Amino acid sequence: MKIEIPKPSLSRICMVYNLLGELENEGVTLISSNEIGARLGLGAHSIRKDFSFLTEIGNSGAKYDVSNLRAHIGRELKINRKRKACIAGLGRLGSAILNYDMFSHSGYEIVAGFDSNINIIETLKTNIRLFPAYQIPDIVKNEGIELAVIAVPADAAQLTAERLITGGIRGIVNFSPSVIKINSDSVFISNIDVVKEFQVLSAFMGLNEED
Amino acid sequence: MKIEIPKPSLSRICMVYNLLGELENEGVTLISSNEIGARLGLGAHSIRKDFSFLTEIGNSGAKYDVSNLRAHIGRELKINRKRKACIAGLGRLGSAILNYDMFSHSGYEIVAGFDSNINIIETLKTNIRLFPAYQIPDIVKNEGIELAVIAVPADAAQLTAERLITGGIRGIVNFSPSVIKINSDSVFISNIDVVKEFQVLSAFMGLNEED
Repeated sequence: MKIEIPKPSLSRICMVYNLLGELENEGVTLISSNEIGARLGLGAHSIRKDFSFLTEIGNSGAKYDVSNLRAHIGRELKINRKRKACIAGLGRLGSAILNYDMFSHSGYEIVAGFDSNINIIETLKTNIRLFPAYQIPDIVKNEGIELAVIAVPADAAQLTAERLITGGIRGIVNFSPSVIKINSDSVFISNIDVVKEFQVLSAFMGLNEED
Repeated sequence: MKIEIPKPSLSRICMVYNLLGELENEGVTLISSNEIGARLGLGAHSIRKDFSFLTEIGNSGAKYDVSNLRAHIGRELKINRKRKACIAGLGRLGSAILNYDMFSHSGYEIVAGFDSNINIIETLKTNIRLFPAYQIPDIVKNEGIELAVIAVPADAAQLTAERLITGGIRGIVNFSPSVIKINSDSVFISNIDVVKEFQVLSAFMGLNEED
């Protein structure tokens, strides 16, 4: 049976997972859904609803055991599974992400970079192997790469996504400002857009401003 | 009275606002909360709950008038208010965002860039005025800048945020991997982290994988 959890729930469960790691470091051993909600700025009802998508999350009393809950979520969502990733588009943004040092502490390993500009491939200084963009399907398939960041210009985003999907990619973080259309139910896309982030911040600010 | 809308609700309302713009372009004039939910991958219940935070959102029948609803949300959240923004940190990531051409179609104008490296300030090619990082408080205050992107290394993020807040910044998009601690209730922060995006995508993938 295919398990379905709505994306907002899954995203919140990942937030909870990271919070539980912080709580472990702080020495906290028990926590209620109310306290989790308060720490994350979410309603306890949402938290309990999200947890209802997970199997056997045992909450006999009012509190969850921090370590058990974290281990359970990690196991159920296979959050700690190591996965290979690549960056498509090695302009300023892509090359910044290529050298993003947080990957070294994560389970995600960047194993390839791609660009349509051969000059960039030949001159960029990095330990990661770089390839021309037309090789995306072959390299993704042969290396077993599951995750990709798209950091190409807007007009190249769709073609880039199609090449990645042809190679068998399963998750894409799209930094390009264009909307990517995909036909597959088994490829997940997360869009990052600074303008939209500004819009949400601006809405917060706007709430309490005079006309 | 200070109006409070939970961040997840506000974020969803912004998604609805953008969807309504697309619907207008498609010539759609009426839409139900069920249809909005289906287009955004959210439950209709969430949508109606989110709308309950907005005043007088009149839904006499089963459908909302697309143009009226969009105008109402835009007005209530002052989404279209023009605001000045700046970029702190002009390495690869910051300079990529500095030249991000989507800003030109938005209500947000990047009016300044900052870096602690004077070499970068003097050599980066851009039409936007650049300043050394210690001038952040003065420039933000004097120019009336409300929004900022932080794209500095992790160890400089906290100081950068404090300088921005001293200048009176109200919203920050934080691309640095470090958590910024702020004391003010009137400054909003949105954290962007590729590793966390990978985590959510990976959780989707993990749901339907064998152990």
